[in-house]
Amino acid sequence: MGGEDCLSGLRVLDLTQFEAGPSCTEALAWLGAEVVKVENPAGGDPGRAINPPPGTDSHYFLQYNANKKSITLDLKAPGGLSLLRGLAQRADVFVENFAPGAIDRLGLGPAAIRALNPAIIYAQVKGFGAGSPFEKNLAFDMIAQACGGPMSITGEADGPPLKPGPTIGDTGTGMLLAISILAALYRRTRTGLGEHIEVAMQDAMFQYVRGAFATETRTGKPCPRAGTGSVLASNPPMGTFPCKGGGPNDYVYVYTSRANPEHWRRLLGVIGRTDLSDDPRYATSAARAERVDEVNEMVATWTRQRDKHAAMRVLGEAGIPAGAVLDTAELLGDTSFADRGIMQTIHHPTIGSYRMPAWPVRFSGRPPPVRPAPLLGEHTEAVLAEWLGVPAGAST
Amino acid sequence: MGGEDCLSGLRVLDLTQFEAGPSCTEALAWLGAEVVKVENPAGGDPGRAINPPPGTDSHYFLQYNANKKSITLDLKAPGGLSLLRGLAQRADVFVENFAPGAIDRLGLGPAAIRALNPAIIYAQVKGFGAGSPFEKNLAFDMIAQACGGPMSITGEADGPPLKPGPTIGDTGTGMLLAISILAALYRRTRTGLGEHIEVAMQDAMFQYVRGAFATETRTGKPCPRAGTGSVLASNPPMGTFPCKGGGPNDYVYVYTSRANPEHWRRLLGVIGRTDLSDDPRYATSAARAERVDEVNEMVATWTRQRDKHAAMRVLGEAGIPAGAVLDTAELLGDTSFADRGIMQTIHHPTIGSYRMPAWPVRFSGRPPPVRPAPLLGEHTEAVLAEWLGVPAGAST
Repeated sequence: MGGEDCLSGLRVLDLTQFEAGPSCTEALAWLGAEVVKVENPAGGDPGRAINPPPGTDSHYFLQYNANKKSITLDLKAPGGLSLLRGLAQRADVFVENFAPGAIDRLGLGPAAIRALNPAIIYAQVKGFGAGSPFEKNLAFDMIAQACGGPMSITGEADGPPLKPGPTIGDTGTGMLLAISILAALYRRTRTGLGEHIEVAMQDAMFQYVRGAFATETRTGKPCPRAGTGSVLASNPPMGTFPCKGGGPNDYVYVYTSRANPEHWRRLLGVIGRTDLSDDPRYATSAARAERVDEVNEMVATWTRQRDKHAAMRVLGEAGIPAGAVLDTAELLGDTSFADRGIMQTIHHPTIGSYRMPAWPVRFSGRPPPVRPAPLLGEHTEAVLAEWLGVPAGAST
Repeated sequence: MGGEDCLSGLRVLDLTQFEAGPSCTEALAWLGAEVVKVENPAGGDPGRAINPPPGTDSHYFLQYNANKKSITLDLKAPGGLSLLRGLAQRADVFVENFAPGAIDRLGLGPAAIRALNPAIIYAQVKGFGAGSPFEKNLAFDMIAQACGGPMSITGEADGPPLKPGPTIGDTGTGMLLAISILAALYRRTRTGLGEHIEVAMQDAMFQYVRGAFATETRTGKPCPRAGTGSVLASNPPMGTFPCKGGGPNDYVYVYTSRANPEHWRRLLGVIGRTDLSDDPRYATSAARAERVDEVNEMVATWTRQRDKHAAMRVLGEAGIPAGAVLDTAELLGDTSFADRGIMQTIHHPTIGSYRMPAWPVRFSGRPPPVRPAPLLGEHTEAVLAEWLGVPAGAST
């Protein structure tokens, strides 16, 4: 039991770089697949070079390539290309996210690889979908977030569009591709059939902004930005409230669900305003929406006297949905995540000890173990020997 | 071929509501599983009632429950509970996202259900993980986004934390659960083993903010907010630039990758400043970072004279990563998404015709077809007859 043997025996040939593709194949690696990352010998995945410490790979690269193997092949040389074709014949899954057209120019497009291995699941990430007017355009996380809806619904109501910090354009896309690959593999266990799967980063964004589409359809207008509120509806009190400390993240989120009127009554108890429990001016979400500033000030008067951790604890114990706004330092430093295996410390040969998030889903009580991302070409000989029987020392 | 038969024959018993759970089971339904949503007879999933048009289900509900069946059972009555247990014996997957403790109080916790059906994949979503100091707390999308990192890295550099509009706390969590369920099912095809899978919404957020953790580890400081930039690094020009029109989303995103110096040279060509092509003051990303206002103004001078669509087209054709900030109305109205099956029009018995995003991944060239979300209890008789042999008319 546990997650790390779910995909054992599965061979993934991974021609991805940066994040959208690597986040997908890393999920497969964490769940037990043998993921072989194929990199060019001249530096490999450019993600290795995003602000690296001197003489090693970047922390960025380590995050998205844990539990994988790395081999180097020169795909512009006949020998490298021939080895790649051999590996593809023995792989269950092939994933790539090169710029549009690049994989076809290498002669490794879906038709070529599926001709060699009809049962392979061939998966691609592009910025814009085939058939889109922009299908030849380049894309990165931020371009997908601009063109796919996320930026239009992020920011203050009267301010400009902002980019969500989470990399929904990259990892958000990668997760949809991983689901699709696993579903196709499940069918293959019964039918033996391969598949060609494509996801465009712009299209993938829709999966994460569907509440905004619901609001658009309901109101007939573009869904607006909501600051710290919800694009579904205003529902006061709802949002971040300032806490002691005055730092950039000294806020606590407080939410009272319309679906459960008890949240508001419990909140009145916590903030010492049970005198208002039966007051019709505040009894419903709709009534409170007419006095939003007054309602928010009642809550803020209470939160300003506490630090965010204390506020979260007291509100949470009272059965009110609440959460401190936590920054990366607070999260990395919270030992409860390490105790539960959600954060794991890895030992990388050139970076040293390093704490990073694991696959955050627990199987029989624990997440799968994290192993460090590979050095460039670390597994070239081993993989070519195991997959193709190439004797040690014979590879390029 | 196609995605819609990948999971055919798979039976999913779906005790989820709102979004984190339903987004997971909807992905399975889109890919061919028979997903039976079990709802209370008194209104069902509270998501049905989030701003619904009069006399029908909400658009919100329709987004997250397409392609599912609905049955009603009173799980607080012995008859309903007994039927649920019978269904669980015949299911492959069981998914729930009730408030902490609720499923155990019903006698339907993991131990109870796995005793009835040892091969079942039993999957749960909670707000905070078992073992967390907050494991009994309630959570919603915004609470997860506050406590899991996303809000701390979203907003202007000198402004307060904001909530990303995309529902990463809900759908972002649901996607990780779907991957985990499918991986466990893949193992089950070989071993027959069931599994107990849990994901906490707070923990799941880490998957989407790992670039920020990399920045934290590199700098030793909490990752700051970056407005429309990237939490990885400033890399000018990079961000939204104002376009003609002056509306709330009349911006175009322009990005020049540090990994490809050609982006900047191409941009100089487009904006008519090839006089600067070899100027060392602008030649590298680091040099441009010292003149960020000047560099941004060069780009803005060009973008202000164009509408965002024209700007995106011209920049994109020149090989520069660029994207218009598109709002929900522009995306719903763009026929190219409908032509490619990324948006599909469904015909719902009480809502009527309605366009919504499909599973945005294409299998052999097209996304799986969308069928409308079920009416409350629409399939009670049919499912009880098919799964349990209960004669029509005999069910509660």
